[in-house]
Amino acid sequence: MADKKIQLAIIGATGYTGREALAILVNHPHVEVRHLQSLEFVGEDVVDVFPQLIGRISLKITKPDVPAVVRDCNCAMLCVPHTAAAEMASQLLKGGVRVIDYSADFRLLDVVEYNRTYNVEHKHPELMKDAVYGLPELHREKIKAAKLVANPGCYPTSVILAGAPLVRNKLIKTDSIIADSKSGVSGAGRSLNLRTLFAECNETVSAYNIGKHRHQPEMTQELSRLAGTNVAVLFVPHLIPMTRGILSTVYFDLVKKMDAKEVHSLFSDFYKNDYFVKVLPLGKLPNTGDVAKTNFCHIGVTIAPDGKLVVVSAIDNLIKGASGQAIQNMNVMFGLPEEKGFY
Amino acid sequence: MADKKIQLAIIGATGYTGREALAILVNHPHVEVRHLQSLEFVGEDVVDVFPQLIGRISLKITKPDVPAVVRDCNCAMLCVPHTAAAEMASQLLKGGVRVIDYSADFRLLDVVEYNRTYNVEHKHPELMKDAVYGLPELHREKIKAAKLVANPGCYPTSVILAGAPLVRNKLIKTDSIIADSKSGVSGAGRSLNLRTLFAECNETVSAYNIGKHRHQPEMTQELSRLAGTNVAVLFVPHLIPMTRGILSTVYFDLVKKMDAKEVHSLFSDFYKNDYFVKVLPLGKLPNTGDVAKTNFCHIGVTIAPDGKLVVVSAIDNLIKGASGQAIQNMNVMFGLPEEKGFY
Amino acid sequence: MADKKIQLAIIGATGYTGREALAILVNHPHVEVRHLQSLEFVGEDVVDVFPQLIGRISLKITKPDVPAVVRDCNCAMLCVPHTAAAEMASQLLKGGVRVIDYSADFRLLDVVEYNRTYNVEHKHPELMKDAVYGLPELHREKIKAAKLVANPGCYPTSVILAGAPLVRNKLIKTDSIIADSKSGVSGAGRSLNLRTLFAECNETVSAYNIGKHRHQPEMTQELSRLAGTNVAVLFVPHLIPMTRGILSTVYFDLVKKMDAKEVHSLFSDFYKNDYFVKVLPLGKLPNTGDVAKTNFCHIGVTIAPDGKLVVVSAIDNLIKGASGQAIQNMNVMFGLPEEKGFY
Amino acid sequence: MADKKIQLAIIGATGYTGREALAILVNHPHVEVRHLQSLEFVGEDVVDVFPQLIGRISLKITKPDVPAVVRDCNCAMLCVPHTAAAEMASQLLKGGVRVIDYSADFRLLDVVEYNRTYNVEHKHPELMKDAVYGLPELHREKIKAAKLVANPGCYPTSVILAGAPLVRNKLIKTDSIIADSKSGVSGAGRSLNLRTLFAECNETVSAYNIGKHRHQPEMTQELSRLAGTNVAVLFVPHLIPMTRGILSTVYFDLVKKMDAKEVHSLFSDFYKNDYFVKVLPLGKLPNTGDVAKTNFCHIGVTIAPDGKLVVVSAIDNLIKGASGQAIQNMNVMFGLPEEKGFY
Repeated sequence: MADKKIQLAIIGATGYTGREALAILVNHPHVEVRHLQSLEFVGEDVVDVFPQLIGRISLKITKPDVPAVVRDCNCAMLCVPHTAAAEMASQLLKGGVRVIDYSADFRLLDVVEYNRTYNVEHKHPELMKDAVYGLPELHREKIKAAKLVANPGCYPTSVILAGAPLVRNKLIKTDSIIADSKSGVSGAGRSLNLRTLFAECNETVSAYNIGKHRHQPEMTQELSRLAGTNVAVLFVPHLIPMTRGILSTVYFDLVKKMDAKEVHSLFSDFYKNDYFVKVLPLGKLPNTGDVAKTNFCHIGVTIAPDGKLVVVSAIDNLIKGASGQAIQNMNVMFGLPEEKGFY
Repeated sequence: MADKKIQLAIIGATGYTGREALAILVNHPHVEVRHLQSLEFVGEDVVDVFPQLIGRISLKITKPDVPAVVRDCNCAMLCVPHTAAAEMASQLLKGGVRVIDYSADFRLLDVVEYNRTYNVEHKHPELMKDAVYGLPELHREKIKAAKLVANPGCYPTSVILAGAPLVRNKLIKTDSIIADSKSGVSGAGRSLNLRTLFAECNETVSAYNIGKHRHQPEMTQELSRLAGTNVAVLFVPHLIPMTRGILSTVYFDLVKKMDAKEVHSLFSDFYKNDYFVKVLPLGKLPNTGDVAKTNFCHIGVTIAPDGKLVVVSAIDNLIKGASGQAIQNMNVMFGLPEEKGFY
Repeated sequence: MADKKIQLAIIGATGYTGREALAILVNHPHVEVRHLQSLEFVGEDVVDVFPQLIGRISLKITKPDVPAVVRDCNCAMLCVPHTAAAEMASQLLKGGVRVIDYSADFRLLDVVEYNRTYNVEHKHPELMKDAVYGLPELHREKIKAAKLVANPGCYPTSVILAGAPLVRNKLIKTDSIIADSKSGVSGAGRSLNLRTLFAECNETVSAYNIGKHRHQPEMTQELSRLAGTNVAVLFVPHLIPMTRGILSTVYFDLVKKMDAKEVHSLFSDFYKNDYFVKVLPLGKLPNTGDVAKTNFCHIGVTIAPDGKLVVVSAIDNLIKGASGQAIQNMNVMFGLPEEKGFY
Repeated sequence: MADKKIQLAIIGATGYTGREALAILVNHPHVEVRHLQSLEFVGEDVVDVFPQLIGRISLKITKPDVPAVVRDCNCAMLCVPHTAAAEMASQLLKGGVRVIDYSADFRLLDVVEYNRTYNVEHKHPELMKDAVYGLPELHREKIKAAKLVANPGCYPTSVILAGAPLVRNKLIKTDSIIADSKSGVSGAGRSLNLRTLFAECNETVSAYNIGKHRHQPEMTQELSRLAGTNVAVLFVPHLIPMTRGILSTVYFDLVKKMDAKEVHSLFSDFYKNDYFVKVLPLGKLPNTGDVAKTNFCHIGVTIAPDGKLVVVSAIDNLIKGASGQAIQNMNVMFGLPEEKGFY
């Protein structure tokens, strides 16, 4: 399959996730970008929307047009709002197009939880059971064959990767996890919002949606599946004055005393075949700058003097937390090496 | 007059200029803030809009209501868009309220130039001749008696103060001035705008409106008045990734050779009675951080090895470039020391 | 006492804490700054070191000279490294000068803990018992009479104020507190350090010293004193890309179920007489921008859906976390209103 | 030659230029990095110095050792201070190693000008005549055969590319050019410096070295060579609060009236074969964010209403202004496509 080009459409291409996907895809030897569709900037060339791509691609933005995608493409990335994504996915799948959905529409397994969390009624619950949660480090085999991949949220990516080795090995108490995450502002997207104006969020830091963020159910679902039992996470996001990056500081109670070396070995072993997850040497802690504009997740583990286990993970929210992970998923789906096209 | 309280209204109080004015006024011993009016946040207490003021003031935001201002106040600050300002000013003046207008409606002397620059028809050209351009360092005496003060633009404040001593003393060529200004993002205001989203303007710098910015006529008008002849300024603004501040680097050709000491003496002498303008010691250049959250303008002068005179001025665009200057004007109008209420 | 001028010396005046103290003190009607002493910049005027003060003060920096302070002053602020501070404090106290020490030398009550934490031997343990921990909200009465005030650390100020109402009222478990703090870079001081270069810490976030920061013993000591029992805090500091501010997100387990209103009432009541601590309305969370360049601490309280109590506090690390608190302490010591001199 | 691997050494590898070179080189299919030498971090693996490279390279930092480079390499990048670079270059060239020197030692053609500008005596003036100024857009043919390439300064790269089409075509006055440049802080390097501490340069902007920066002679030399006559540039650099990027706003007087279209055509034509220089469509102005972490230079041209020509160029100071340009030069020297290895 790898010698056949991927004929790709991006629907909702003019936000940050579209931009970031393209910035990688212009280097991808196996992908031909066939359609860039959006409700905005219709008729403009993509380089007028994103001048950083000048001279590297040239394609007109067209209105969302699923039939055209079905006609020309074998893969589509959906960077559209939830509910709209479910509609499009349904049509694309019928047309034989494999779908990578950046929205939340197929991340949750339970339609009741979805409806409650997003305060809407899911349009295509029948598709939910076949969707694969697109965290390749956990679900690689299923992604290979998937027709519909639910690209994870940015915060869940960072928190799940920090907790996966622990819950799978039943090393921690499942009712006392706290994930204190710090995100750059690009996570709020490119739509107009008083809160994300430069003069509002520069030189300040704040917490928001304490225990009520929509990404919390996604974290608990995935960690619970890994644990084989219910896992609760108290998730507290913060907005900090930088453009890119999420640092998650995750607090765990060990069920039995372990030293840092043991925990470090466990993590290193767990991720030993995952190119994009790097467990830092013991004693080192990650920072978001080191993973900026990359698809890497850096993880550091520490045991505090009081015995508490603190795991810190760092990703670029727009890459490993969105567009890079989508391309990683695409590579897996089409039988390519996971890192193909990445620099 | 100074022993009588200033009864103040701010119309358009919920933008950055309103916030900055209030942050100073809560300390002002001679001002009672009577009305805070806005089209937004009506019914909310001002501290809900600007939590930094919690515990220092409490007042409900009400809809714009000029008659209430006439009834209760002897001074009004207009932080509303141009054209709206002219309408309100007219009514306030009729009601005997002294007006400090932050908009551009009364900055230009020539209605034709105004109409051309702002691409509207001036609603109250009859008021233009009595309005005073509110740069106290140049027009202090007229401001004392003024009923209507046109608070200067942020960029013009920085450029005019950099050029005033030179043009008044006829030391420079009047056809080759270049003002290259660098502004923080708050200058674009608090309204929603893709361009001022954090993720759009952080970690980047750009020029805009080269030679076509609406503040250019204001600079040339004031410098021409001082020179007694037509002065041309090529004004090139830049947006840089910080919240507050304008640095203007202004390039002049001297009509005859002067050394740096002479120029420095000239500036020091020119501003010797101006508390809010500080001419830095020879050899020092200003930066915007040093004047942040203050009403000061710092000026440094240099003569380059090739003989070109370079004057650099730094202000806080929201204080000396807007709300601080308005309060300075108010102090002058009401017979108070210029620095009263400032920290 | 209030009608007598405070004759003040600042020793170690050329770092950020000296600068911030002066920026407030130039407005303080009861303080005369008599000596600014430092090992650096000796012989320069303070305005050459801190150009933001130009025109507001003029004083030569001199070498540290305790006898001169004893001769001329009734109050000294020590902004020097720990151990050096203890030496100077001893001499100043003998000379009858009241001392506000910004260092850690007199914050801990237990000399063994001090020696262990700072890895030195305390030079003047005999003074420790009379030193007062200078958090006026907790120790106001003792500060009034104190000869030696230990100005709290920046992180402890934010964490202790977030926890004080809870531990004093025995509402929380004392063995499971987590304080996840986010600090601006100025907290690292003005000395040269690869880690605090702009290009190293801009656009990145990292955790450091997990469970091992020197401020942790200070927090646990003060909270334990309030609780009347041992309190453990896991303290995890983070460096974020902004200049000023600390946001502490503090996680507590309630000993019995309470709703948010009850907790909010408790906090409001606890701080009802504290001008510089503002408990935000229920539903609001603080941010550091709102307290920047002020001596305020803003506190928000939330109970997460899972019952965990999350208290968020925001301060300016250089003001309420250092120089502002020192001036607040000075005001208390000299019988002045706490907010005197502040804007 | 392209099928033979480039065996590369980087001497002075632990600063920002070394880091940036490596971040590109880990993807370069024709380069084997054989030596990373530095006075600092000796014995550490490069990924401990630059954790962003974890999993992509592993090599111990060794002390500077020119004989080892001669033994193992056919190409060396010198990221060491001027004067040290000349010494090493001399030995490397004798050993048959081709040299790309990031320092200023071989940028100027005139030893007297060099000695004056850098206030030292050049150690190897005999090598100056054979060194090639490594701006491939101007000197591509000479670079192909060069043994010694002088990698240009960051500011000169941005200013020369903005002026080259104009001076070569004799369209502008050569005595009135002003280059007002705005640089991110990484340009100051990774050494300790009070001025580049985060808390010193965040949220502020300043001009420095007006008309006296060491990069000015480099600009005038190259523009003069192109013009065939003496060209003077008044160069005024500014430091702005961002990590990467230089925006140069360059002011020119046209010798005869031209419209913007003509100037734009001239630029487009001049750079039509240069992959890394993109002339933006008429009406668009560049920003540094769009070229961050790339080797591109974006150029926008405008004619102001008063007839002044304003050219704005944007580069990443660490890539096109340093390490990327060095790799571009290396590609040219070794017969590879210029863009090889870049993403």
